[in-house]
Amino acid sequence: MLFHVKMVVKLPHDMPVERANELKANEKAMAQRLQKEGIWRHLWRIAGLYANYSVFDVESPAQLNDLLMQLPLYPYMEIEVDAICRHPSSIHEDDR
Amino acid sequence: MLFHVKMVVKLPHDMPVERANELKANEKAMAQRLQKEGIWRHLWRIAGLYANYSVFDVESPAQLNDLLMQLPLYPYMEIEVDAICRHPSSIHEDDR
Amino acid sequence: MLFHVKMVVKLPHDMPVERANELKANEKAMAQRLQKEGIWRHLWRIAGLYANYSVFDVESPAQLNDLLMQLPLYPYMEIEVDAICRHPSSIHEDDR
Amino acid sequence: MLFHVKMVVKLPHDMPVERANELKANEKAMAQRLQKEGIWRHLWRIAGLYANYSVFDVESPAQLNDLLMQLPLYPYMEIEVDAICRHPSSIHEDDR
Amino acid sequence: MLFHVKMVVKLPHDMPVERANELKANEKAMAQRLQKEGIWRHLWRIAGLYANYSVFDVESPAQLNDLLMQLPLYPYMEIEVDAICRHPSSIHEDDR
Amino acid sequence: MLFHVKMVVKLPHDMPVERANELKANEKAMAQRLQKEGIWRHLWRIAGLYANYSVFDVESPAQLNDLLMQLPLYPYMEIEVDAICRHPSSIHEDDR
Amino acid sequence: MLFHVKMVVKLPHDMPVERANELKANEKAMAQRLQKEGIWRHLWRIAGLYANYSVFDVESPAQLNDLLMQLPLYPYMEIEVDAICRHPSSIHEDDR
Amino acid sequence: MLFHVKMVVKLPHDMPVERANELKANEKAMAQRLQKEGIWRHLWRIAGLYANYSVFDVESPAQLNDLLMQLPLYPYMEIEVDAICRHPSSIHEDDR
Amino acid sequence: MLFHVKMVVKLPHDMPVERANELKANEKAMAQRLQKEGIWRHLWRIAGLYANYSVFDVESPAQLNDLLMQLPLYPYMEIEVDAICRHPSSIHEDDR
Amino acid sequence: MLFHVKMVVKLPHDMPVERANELKANEKAMAQRLQKEGIWRHLWRIAGLYANYSVFDVESPAQLNDLLMQLPLYPYMEIEVDAICRHPSSIHEDDR
Repeated sequence: MLFHVKMVVKLPHDMPVERANELKANEKAMAQRLQKEGIWRHLWRIAGLYANYSVFDVESPAQLNDLLMQLPLYPYMEIEVDAICRHPSSIHEDDR
Repeated sequence: MLFHVKMVVKLPHDMPVERANELKANEKAMAQRLQKEGIWRHLWRIAGLYANYSVFDVESPAQLNDLLMQLPLYPYMEIEVDAICRHPSSIHEDDR
Repeated sequence: MLFHVKMVVKLPHDMPVERANELKANEKAMAQRLQKEGIWRHLWRIAGLYANYSVFDVESPAQLNDLLMQLPLYPYMEIEVDAICRHPSSIHEDDR
Repeated sequence: MLFHVKMVVKLPHDMPVERANELKANEKAMAQRLQKEGIWRHLWRIAGLYANYSVFDVESPAQLNDLLMQLPLYPYMEIEVDAICRHPSSIHEDDR
Repeated sequence: MLFHVKMVVKLPHDMPVERANELKANEKAMAQRLQKEGIWRHLWRIAGLYANYSVFDVESPAQLNDLLMQLPLYPYMEIEVDAICRHPSSIHEDDR
Repeated sequence: MLFHVKMVVKLPHDMPVERANELKANEKAMAQRLQKEGIWRHLWRIAGLYANYSVFDVESPAQLNDLLMQLPLYPYMEIEVDAICRHPSSIHEDDR
Repeated sequence: MLFHVKMVVKLPHDMPVERANELKANEKAMAQRLQKEGIWRHLWRIAGLYANYSVFDVESPAQLNDLLMQLPLYPYMEIEVDAICRHPSSIHEDDR
Repeated sequence: MLFHVKMVVKLPHDMPVERANELKANEKAMAQRLQKEGIWRHLWRIAGLYANYSVFDVESPAQLNDLLMQLPLYPYMEIEVDAICRHPSSIHEDDR
Repeated sequence: MLFHVKMVVKLPHDMPVERANELKANEKAMAQRLQKEGIWRHLWRIAGLYANYSVFDVESPAQLNDLLMQLPLYPYMEIEVDAICRHPSSIHEDDR
Repeated sequence: MLFHVKMVVKLPHDMPVERANELKANEKAMAQRLQKEGIWRHLWRIAGLYANYSVFDVESPAQLNDLLMQLPLYPYMEIEVDAICRHPSSIHEDDR
């Protein structure tokens, strides 16, 4: 099932650069692993903002919850979650 | 170039059913035509809401503007537009 | 899977009483049918407001979407949808 | 009497991990005790958010107030409280 | 138990004056009856606004719900409800 | 003249407990003195929130301003002030 | 005592021009009478908006309430009221 | 030309008292100088809030900008600026 | 002096097409006249919205007020006005 | 293609003055370089606010994203981005 997620990242100004870089590298690694597994299906930067629109394909809300909470940058994110489904005007039976 | 668009539809309560059906049919036809042309790349219903998240692939902001304003349901929509681009953590060179 | 839904009903002031009563009766009938089927698991009035908090148990976001949109009062509702799941501190394996 | 409570937890970024873990463990213990006593009747995680929807069954607003303020994570929560009651369309005389 | 209620009244501009006067007279009569019964304990106009702050003393959230919904002007009100209780710094055991 | 005041208290997480206790004790002492003087006429806790609804009876807006600003917890409060007056439907000539 | 009032006027689009002109003329007459009486002390248009910032000098919140509610355009206004008083940095003992 | 300015001051809780007093004294001195020069024409405390409504009479938006930014408390203010002008119902040709 | 103005147009759904077209034509004519006169210096459509960002170069806030209020579509606009001035980092002495 | 950007700068109160000055100097240098290159086409201070309205002329949303994120003050900005395009009432074929 699909979820549309908006993530806005706000790092504390006093976070050491090394710590920030480490978190970002870990975040990127996990994001890429989840993309390769077909779970994190879309990931777009919102132009000019430290933020993204994403589409997740999970087996349950619980799985989505567990994945998001494991993201290294999760404590620094403002997150909005919307369940999405096939639109009656879509030409795709299953647009993931 | 890609734009993420959120559309929320609010039809007036006193719109005759035939008029509403006509508008919806025209909207669906145009949405499907634009999908087939590769312009309206994603179209998801937000579960439980008369609303959608969409991704458009256009040549310019002006083209996006013209397309949206031609939608039959446009006068009844609340619209949010965000330019999006490749995310540095995306595994796709060009995720459309 | 569970969804938490908040519904706020706003009937137009110029709706004839008979029409309002008909809609409310149909809404009640459908709400009670879905409760008996185990889909609409909880339904609470927010004290003093023409509004409710509900919990739905559905097979997919698409089913939730279809059910909500069939509610007779749906065109007059403002709706908020949140996917919910087991809380790590819950004493229930499966609190529905 | 029933209250619907939304709790959003925001821990300070500079809280030591041990302190956070201690608070969470105490919070969980108290939450489970109140659930077993039949006071904290429902507790659902909002998928993807460090937040929950809860239903409390208390004898008075004062009791609700005292319980919430004793929660170990209370100083780090944003809380919304709504009194709820039987919905006229509910099939349950007393849905707790 | 006590509830703090804020009511903002918004009459439709096209409501006939006679209808508005009838509603207001009925509202006043019911408000005064509930005050005499000790249920509607305080009723203050917010200076300059067609709005009031009120304190209700009821036996349950359900009673509050039923009373508010019977108010003749209820369909034209925006309402906020908060359960209130004794403040630890109050000098009154039971400030109603 | 009467003012309705909503106070929401937000103590910094890093305030030492002794300092917080001292502030609260001083706040309580001043609140009780003003209640005994008939100035702070009502003081209700909003159930579940570190917040109160209050009614002040002062001689001028300037007096209200001076009193509120002397509250020991004032620097940690979010405050909303509304002048209130007799409601035309009140059964009391002078509801304080 | 002084009140700072913001008024935003929103006339219904279907109000006949003659009715609008009549209301505006009556509003202007009353506004000018109150200015001459020293009650409506300042009246500024917010540049570009159908709105004003005003300062009233009244004997009580009740008087302010009565005056505002008698304004011919009152039913079409959104109003914000703030009690104001001498600022400690003002060079005027009594800036009206 | 006139500008209506709302200033809300939020001092950091950890600012040393001496620093706060120094800033406030400097702010007061500058505010009084500008009042004497006829630039800061009105300055009212919003009763109960650490905030003011002010009216400035400047030669240009640039002058307003420069003056506000030189205020000692400027870094701790939330500011709203509105250009204002003569209201057509004002009895004053030039209400400053 | 320069003002930045955001205009969002919301035509009533029941406005006859001829009336809408007449208003739009008159609006366009006035907009183009003001542009040629050097007053309406910039006019950009916000892509996808029935809205624009504009920059006006006027002699006073009063002139801005008069011009905006004469716009044929003014009664159907939501407007935000901000005075702007030279930015200290601008490479232009006078960017109009 | 053009983007309208609003930037609001909020420096932490505890940033050392030298660090702030360094950031501002670097920001100014980069802003002036981008202006000279014809990319940052307009830059206006919002009068009285530590904020600006800007117009960027870029080749893609990705370029806008990269430029904004390289701004030295970027971590301290709240940013709003809107794609803009030619307005049908503009007298300019290409208003940059």
